[in-house]
Amino acid sequence: MLDTRKRTGFDESHEQYRETVRKFIAREVEPYLDTWEADEITSKAFWRAAGNAGLLCTSMPEEYGGAGLDVSYDLIFQEELFYVNAPVGVSLQSLITAPYLLRYGSDELKARYLPGMVSGEIISALGMTEPGGGSDVKSLRTTARRDGDHYVVNGSKLYISNGLLCDLVFLAVRTGEEGAKGVSLLLVEADSPGFERGRNLDKIGLKGADTSELFFNDVRVPVSNLLGEEGQGFRYMMSELGQERLGLSIAAQAQAQRAFDEAVRFVKERKAFGTPVFQFQNTRFTLADMSARLQAGWAYLDWARLQLLQGTLTSEEAAASKLWHSETLWHIVDAALQLHGGAGYMNEYPIARLWRDARIHRIHGGTSEIMKEVISRKI
Amino acid sequence: MLDTRKRTGFDESHEQYRETVRKFIAREVEPYLDTWEADEITSKAFWRAAGNAGLLCTSMPEEYGGAGLDVSYDLIFQEELFYVNAPVGVSLQSLITAPYLLRYGSDELKARYLPGMVSGEIISALGMTEPGGGSDVKSLRTTARRDGDHYVVNGSKLYISNGLLCDLVFLAVRTGEEGAKGVSLLLVEADSPGFERGRNLDKIGLKGADTSELFFNDVRVPVSNLLGEEGQGFRYMMSELGQERLGLSIAAQAQAQRAFDEAVRFVKERKAFGTPVFQFQNTRFTLADMSARLQAGWAYLDWARLQLLQGTLTSEEAAASKLWHSETLWHIVDAALQLHGGAGYMNEYPIARLWRDARIHRIHGGTSEIMKEVISRKI
Amino acid sequence: MLDTRKRTGFDESHEQYRETVRKFIAREVEPYLDTWEADEITSKAFWRAAGNAGLLCTSMPEEYGGAGLDVSYDLIFQEELFYVNAPVGVSLQSLITAPYLLRYGSDELKARYLPGMVSGEIISALGMTEPGGGSDVKSLRTTARRDGDHYVVNGSKLYISNGLLCDLVFLAVRTGEEGAKGVSLLLVEADSPGFERGRNLDKIGLKGADTSELFFNDVRVPVSNLLGEEGQGFRYMMSELGQERLGLSIAAQAQAQRAFDEAVRFVKERKAFGTPVFQFQNTRFTLADMSARLQAGWAYLDWARLQLLQGTLTSEEAAASKLWHSETLWHIVDAALQLHGGAGYMNEYPIARLWRDARIHRIHGGTSEIMKEVISRKI
Amino acid sequence: MLDTRKRTGFDESHEQYRETVRKFIAREVEPYLDTWEADEITSKAFWRAAGNAGLLCTSMPEEYGGAGLDVSYDLIFQEELFYVNAPVGVSLQSLITAPYLLRYGSDELKARYLPGMVSGEIISALGMTEPGGGSDVKSLRTTARRDGDHYVVNGSKLYISNGLLCDLVFLAVRTGEEGAKGVSLLLVEADSPGFERGRNLDKIGLKGADTSELFFNDVRVPVSNLLGEEGQGFRYMMSELGQERLGLSIAAQAQAQRAFDEAVRFVKERKAFGTPVFQFQNTRFTLADMSARLQAGWAYLDWARLQLLQGTLTSEEAAASKLWHSETLWHIVDAALQLHGGAGYMNEYPIARLWRDARIHRIHGGTSEIMKEVISRKI
Repeated sequence: MLDTRKRTGFDESHEQYRETVRKFIAREVEPYLDTWEADEITSKAFWRAAGNAGLLCTSMPEEYGGAGLDVSYDLIFQEELFYVNAPVGVSLQSLITAPYLLRYGSDELKARYLPGMVSGEIISALGMTEPGGGSDVKSLRTTARRDGDHYVVNGSKLYISNGLLCDLVFLAVRTGEEGAKGVSLLLVEADSPGFERGRNLDKIGLKGADTSELFFNDVRVPVSNLLGEEGQGFRYMMSELGQERLGLSIAAQAQAQRAFDEAVRFVKERKAFGTPVFQFQNTRFTLADMSARLQAGWAYLDWARLQLLQGTLTSEEAAASKLWHSETLWHIVDAALQLHGGAGYMNEYPIARLWRDARIHRIHGGTSEIMKEVISRKI
Repeated sequence: MLDTRKRTGFDESHEQYRETVRKFIAREVEPYLDTWEADEITSKAFWRAAGNAGLLCTSMPEEYGGAGLDVSYDLIFQEELFYVNAPVGVSLQSLITAPYLLRYGSDELKARYLPGMVSGEIISALGMTEPGGGSDVKSLRTTARRDGDHYVVNGSKLYISNGLLCDLVFLAVRTGEEGAKGVSLLLVEADSPGFERGRNLDKIGLKGADTSELFFNDVRVPVSNLLGEEGQGFRYMMSELGQERLGLSIAAQAQAQRAFDEAVRFVKERKAFGTPVFQFQNTRFTLADMSARLQAGWAYLDWARLQLLQGTLTSEEAAASKLWHSETLWHIVDAALQLHGGAGYMNEYPIARLWRDARIHRIHGGTSEIMKEVISRKI
Repeated sequence: MLDTRKRTGFDESHEQYRETVRKFIAREVEPYLDTWEADEITSKAFWRAAGNAGLLCTSMPEEYGGAGLDVSYDLIFQEELFYVNAPVGVSLQSLITAPYLLRYGSDELKARYLPGMVSGEIISALGMTEPGGGSDVKSLRTTARRDGDHYVVNGSKLYISNGLLCDLVFLAVRTGEEGAKGVSLLLVEADSPGFERGRNLDKIGLKGADTSELFFNDVRVPVSNLLGEEGQGFRYMMSELGQERLGLSIAAQAQAQRAFDEAVRFVKERKAFGTPVFQFQNTRFTLADMSARLQAGWAYLDWARLQLLQGTLTSEEAAASKLWHSETLWHIVDAALQLHGGAGYMNEYPIARLWRDARIHRIHGGTSEIMKEVISRKI
Repeated sequence: MLDTRKRTGFDESHEQYRETVRKFIAREVEPYLDTWEADEITSKAFWRAAGNAGLLCTSMPEEYGGAGLDVSYDLIFQEELFYVNAPVGVSLQSLITAPYLLRYGSDELKARYLPGMVSGEIISALGMTEPGGGSDVKSLRTTARRDGDHYVVNGSKLYISNGLLCDLVFLAVRTGEEGAKGVSLLLVEADSPGFERGRNLDKIGLKGADTSELFFNDVRVPVSNLLGEEGQGFRYMMSELGQERLGLSIAAQAQAQRAFDEAVRFVKERKAFGTPVFQFQNTRFTLADMSARLQAGWAYLDWARLQLLQGTLTSEEAAASKLWHSETLWHIVDAALQLHGGAGYMNEYPIARLWRDARIHRIHGGTSEIMKEVISRKI
């Protein structure tokens, strides 16, 4: 059997962690996937369980409850979650918001929120995209006007992952002039008066995770909840892009591997015209092509992870990986569905949900087109 | 404005009919699309309305209530329905089952069922695919055993369009030996004892039309309900393949045109980085490529329709059209979704449903791979 | 055998003409293809023979020696030439330069040049592209300065088909201000003092036709050799774009058909692992896909030709056809080469030359990217 | 500037070697590329120079004149040669024939031939493919009949790299029954009576390296020139496939990188419509996509090299790499040519030759289709 998943750069400790993660997923994730899909939201119980098992924000320092590990551990959790196609927003917390807070937050803010983020008692969201604005952070219109020792926040945000679930919003606001230099990051608690959540958006896929609009009407936020300095929000968000994009690349690659595995299983069992579907040359060639792409994908990923750990991964390189892995996932998952024939169109087969979920990768975290813009700036 | 839909081969009468159809759709289809989607089934009221408006089975002779028109009229209805992405199973009746009955049925059968099929009081289904069997009609296992002047039918069918809605099943059964020569077509009324419908299948898309499993347990069907002769069922089904595949090609092309139109509308309204999305070269190039494919598609379709009307369209040519139009639709609808960015993933935008619905074209009515098999036999 | 070439819109007279053309090609073209390839230029004898046979500029009026036929006849010659992969520059004369002259030239100019162009004694070239300038006619830098009753021409042109062979250059020059409004078309005879031809360019393919640079050093051209009016050259060139692009589309489609036919022949003869290569599913699927594209291509072409004859083909529609047919040709010819395995890389097999020649289609007459620009202006 | 070539797994010694190689190439290769292209053969002087510089067969033991290094060094030479698009057959000797000889040859054979192969005085060829037989080694028809202490060889071989240049042929012959078990490898000296070379084949590209047919008419070869044992030839050839395919992957990747670099250089210099071509979004997006693929390709390659060095690279994994890198090269080099516009079609631009040369990768060393067969056997 061809091993399309021959990894490099992991040590014994990583492998043990992966085993722990797999057991956790078998126990706390897989049995609930259909429920989350039907509810169109992940349960808070999952977050608590992941926190209890020590699987959230493992790279945070021990003083905040983390394990102070290299980021590979969080990436392993991400990979294994997406291999079972659990589209939960964990990497958002472990790879994006917690690192922002650790890197730029005051000691007070860190002490207040990080332990909960590690334990899963605080679920975070990132409030960046706005209606009509897309990925264009520089022109965002949600304002935070200074009023004494508070900011008064007005505006709305769209397509927010964990929007319904979240306890804390890392909110991109305009505190100053037009453009990137007027953008700040503010930590807004979800029980603040004037904060409201829109309905859960009806998406093509990713139904196991909620996505919604958020509204801010004269929400008063203490000035101490400002992350770092005023006007630095854009820069802060840019600084973790490598890690963020790598998290998305891993999710894409893991889903691609799963799609391949599902297709192999299906075509070996299913017969057509009296022959296992696997025996047809078209099937075998399609799978062979997929397996070459998967092999490339894992090698690319482990290379990028190595660069990240060494501190040499540029955000353009991460963008290239995000682009490539998203597009490759799509190629693979669509071909895998096709190999299922009519069954592939039925949601009862894993490939159908995988296919619907996978489509988001070419869009979220910056579309493939945005990635190309980013990459081309350094050519 | 580029007209990607410059048609050939229609006369004044066709154009008037198209106007009638459009008005009907605006009145009786578009307002109900969301309801059908939510109910996961088209209403019977639609069928009655279409029948009353004279839009069903227009090519049937006047003695059975039809209009005796050339098949272009039924194709126009199909085209306009799919342009509004109404995935109703009308072409199944107008282009497939009614023609079977007209061509091969006894006078008695025609008199009994055709008028209702024309008026929309009888909704038909085609029971061909079986669990595990896929498109391989030759090895079907549903049996019809002769018992006096009845057949006793046992077996089950899968992925049946109109399965829940239907009053009458055109059922492929085995009345004889293994292989194609043992296959017959039997007309089974849906209120026959022993006939049961499975649950409505949960599909990726096409939710406005029901699809289900059908079960037959000792269902007694009068011998007079045999279509034509015993052992000729496979041949009968093959005989209308040109028309059937052209019906699917038209649906695909109309959906592709709609996807393009939706994308154009969206990118001209939506701004990114202060500029209408349409202005970006990537957007314009993507749309230009689509419009060239659409132009090719309409020309190809009108050519095929002309061949069909002249009686010169081979089933391989129709298979080539079905293959090409399905794959082209997919290319276009996927690119059109991508041009929507995050909005494209939200079911509230027409493109999202269109995209989910469009995926079936590479699968149903014979997968793209089956089409290639069919075509290659004549190379 | 699947007929991928089932045409529409031709009458008996066209069919007879096609027969004449095929006989001519068998006699006057096919035996010389290897010679032209080796010489890197078409023989003048071919031009004379084509003129004698009445195959050049058939749409020119009888008073100039033409046959006053609809443009389909010239298109048939083009199609049949490219089906044998004879990359001669006949369509340039029949579909582009002669029509310019007929439509915009003075009676004197028409009388002087058209009869020779019809008889093949005058071979024309179109001097448009300049070094560094690409397809950007508006900024051309070759100047024609008025000096008494002459223009004095200075500048150079690049990538000129028939550059070595030509007797007459339809030369785009700047007679006035910057931009399109300063461009005129001048007829320059090749024996004019100061006119020089560069070397024959070493191309990837199209070796049977010469391509070169042209130099103009104080070339004196009588003012009467101005085509139409000063400053109208750009408009004149735009006016025949539909016809020009359709000529290129036909060439592409004919080459694609030939590539398919070569591949079918090869895979039916050649064995691999003891089996005819045709029998492999991958081969049959590849050919099936090609044949669907070919069928679409012929239908698209005949639709476009019909629009051209009716005077309703817009230049954007023609650009869409040129784009689509060029890209489709490339897809097909490359797959056809691949089906040849190692033999496909050897110039002794027709597919190798076809493949090298075919690559130009995505570039000449405006690249695919230029076509997309053109099309998108009307979306 | 984006570094698409950020490698892993090389140490200081490798880097120094790479510098040596680059200097050698600047001195002994680049100045002669046009000559070799025109002569359609690499000069023997190059082979001698490479041998003198210690760049051939560096992994051979020191007792035979080699350096006993890991195979990375030979791969570095391969990479740098193909980055300048020097299609010389060095890897055939360093990665294929010399390793066969070292691994399976008698001490006598090794002593007789290896030193010359290391010094470049002996140029080898591999006689495998036969007319009509393609890649199907199992059914080869060149026979070696035992006659006393000689074999008498009869048959012919096709598409032999170094066919004209070679001093020594590693010849696959049939010494026994039908099928793989009857195949042996025989070392045939090129001055053996009865050995003849066919003409240099006229290829689409790779013109700097000769390819020809070889004929064997009662060629007497001493039995001691048998490599290893009778009937083991097929197994021997299979045993080095990983290394062979990796050599081809590296060549493909290096050419892809060069194509990208050529395109970047060109579009930054060339203007269209008054703007550098690089500024167009289509150009930037195309280059961004290429650079993501290149990054993936280098990572994939370094992963595969690591597996090879560790002895864990399976021949299927190497086949997947060969497939992926060949197809990716083609995608990139074709897009790079297109970015050149008309210039790309002119052999005077490096991209044109690169493009013609690159096409062989999807064919030689086993076509992409053969690779898919190979891979699918282990799925």
